[in-house]
Amino acid sequence: MSLRFLGIAGSLRQKSTNRGLLRAVAAHLPDGVELDVAELSDIPFYNADITEKPAPVLRVLAQIGQADALVLACPEYNYSMAPALKNILDWASREPNNGLLAGKAVAILGSGGGMGTSRAQYHLRQSCVFLDLHPLNKPEVFANAFSGSFNEHGDLVDERLHGLITEQMQALAAWTRTLKG
Amino acid sequence: MSLRFLGIAGSLRQKSTNRGLLRAVAAHLPDGVELDVAELSDIPFYNADITEKPAPVLRVLAQIGQADALVLACPEYNYSMAPALKNILDWASREPNNGLLAGKAVAILGSGGGMGTSRAQYHLRQSCVFLDLHPLNKPEVFANAFSGSFNEHGDLVDERLHGLITEQMQALAAWTRTLKG
Amino acid sequence: MSLRFLGIAGSLRQKSTNRGLLRAVAAHLPDGVELDVAELSDIPFYNADITEKPAPVLRVLAQIGQADALVLACPEYNYSMAPALKNILDWASREPNNGLLAGKAVAILGSGGGMGTSRAQYHLRQSCVFLDLHPLNKPEVFANAFSGSFNEHGDLVDERLHGLITEQMQALAAWTRTLKG
Amino acid sequence: MSLRFLGIAGSLRQKSTNRGLLRAVAAHLPDGVELDVAELSDIPFYNADITEKPAPVLRVLAQIGQADALVLACPEYNYSMAPALKNILDWASREPNNGLLAGKAVAILGSGGGMGTSRAQYHLRQSCVFLDLHPLNKPEVFANAFSGSFNEHGDLVDERLHGLITEQMQALAAWTRTLKG
Repeated sequence: MSLRFLGIAGSLRQKSTNRGLLRAVAAHLPDGVELDVAELSDIPFYNADITEKPAPVLRVLAQIGQADALVLACPEYNYSMAPALKNILDWASREPNNGLLAGKAVAILGSGGGMGTSRAQYHLRQSCVFLDLHPLNKPEVFANAFSGSFNEHGDLVDERLHGLITEQMQALAAWTRTLKG
Repeated sequence: MSLRFLGIAGSLRQKSTNRGLLRAVAAHLPDGVELDVAELSDIPFYNADITEKPAPVLRVLAQIGQADALVLACPEYNYSMAPALKNILDWASREPNNGLLAGKAVAILGSGGGMGTSRAQYHLRQSCVFLDLHPLNKPEVFANAFSGSFNEHGDLVDERLHGLITEQMQALAAWTRTLKG
Repeated sequence: MSLRFLGIAGSLRQKSTNRGLLRAVAAHLPDGVELDVAELSDIPFYNADITEKPAPVLRVLAQIGQADALVLACPEYNYSMAPALKNILDWASREPNNGLLAGKAVAILGSGGGMGTSRAQYHLRQSCVFLDLHPLNKPEVFANAFSGSFNEHGDLVDERLHGLITEQMQALAAWTRTLKG
Repeated sequence: MSLRFLGIAGSLRQKSTNRGLLRAVAAHLPDGVELDVAELSDIPFYNADITEKPAPVLRVLAQIGQADALVLACPEYNYSMAPALKNILDWASREPNNGLLAGKAVAILGSGGGMGTSRAQYHLRQSCVFLDLHPLNKPEVFANAFSGSFNEHGDLVDERLHGLITEQMQALAAWTRTLKG
């Protein structure tokens, strides 16, 4: 079964190391897996008064709809999630019966300070309960953005983390297939 | 000592019950306390590439700077915080030495589903650790938005909650004075 | 595929409503599912200095080993887990390669105050990440111990909750079979 | 104002690095501060059926009652708190009006894996909300038990951490005095 993953990075910065993690993901996909990447820079805040979804929101929701699994690159701001990442999940959750998200497999990774965005990742995992998403338990990927693991463009240059991401993508492919039966 | 509180509601919806909670707060201030209210609808996502703070951000940061304590009306979206509330705290945290926030007293309240936004409030409390904010422990205020506690304009009409908010504002005034020594 | 669930209640009190929830589980098992129940009252605290596992610990670890899935009745003490429930998971986690727990399906339910032990349940879910357990996302079961849902023996007498537990056990059977492939 | 701190380590192991952290605390107390240390190895699990508190429980509750502030050395087991630490707080919380704990200052530190018990510490902070304890925000102390920071007896030998603990104890003394007015 061929699979399509959608990568979403929660940082809007162009040289974001979390965007860099998604480029590493793209370089380490198992056979039979394609990666699409979402762009969040033009997505407005969710607001229940907006009755017609803006075009950029529709664009990303369509990408989510076509994905078999999500790869969430989760920054940590002030010990919790980046608003841009949380916000696109909030938009997606408003579809009838949570139809865009329910039951999908997820891999979470992140780049940040010394704890590698772990605090934010556990908050994201709690959101996944309500969203009925199924995050991988292992391997967890925690990257330190300030210790030489990334170059000045935000590209991952740490071999151990490249290996861990390879392993995580293989686990995500297997997990997605298990969940699809 | 007279005090100035700043109310920030995390929902952008005009008839938001979380905005309604702040109106209830305004009606129950202890003597010697004034309330200012922040407006988040024109605040963009934090993005480290934006080197000059936009005017709406500067407006709210000035309000935060003048406040002795914050009153955070915290919605819950998908078991965590509303991005708009988290986002303004992220902007505020980027001032030198966290000078706008460090050491300030905070009261948290929220309106949402059956758990009254408690899941989101505990995530917000975790952010307060890094932000060096001091949230009140008690009373916690959890309002159910769907059980008749609010009218169609989002105004709070539940007497028990009006009493609890009165109690919370008295506790916040005392807590703010304790922290200020 | 016939399945064996193991129920573990985190309260040691004889008339515990969390033990009562497991009796309700026993009454609502899908066809082809058997329920075993663990007793924690004689389990000592985990201590790395104890090099030989005490007999009561071995007894429960054997039950865990034979189970296809776990049903965890999770009390809430002071906004987190009951030590007795956490403690047996800590003992179980020390087997080589986490072999007793890794990959198993889990259902979480709980009886407590007004939030129905939700705060403790999200902490338990975080432990499941490391333990490589796979908790059901839905339905979540939150019972109020103080609103007439239980009789004086701790038996569940609330029809809505009986229905929800029936639904949860059906979901657990399906989820266990999905995970086993 | 002279102050009395009570140190409580959540690990029962004799050579525990968390016990070692409390020895480092004892070596770095500010002037005018004394440290008492609780022993948890003979404390039974809290059980509401036990109507008369066992003598070891009474011993530690008396220590808590005499303390102006608590120093909690918090291990991490399976991404949450050690049961022995949580359990003594559960016992203490059952006093009338939460009188032993309410309003006290707390410092949290911990030794464990690569994240330095941070996951467990945030769970402990959530318990502090209900217990009406006031944990210090900063400095947080996260020690890695497996990277040479401790010797074979569990003594802290890392200079940076010795300095951080010194700083934390000074902050705790100041925070305790602020809270006492």
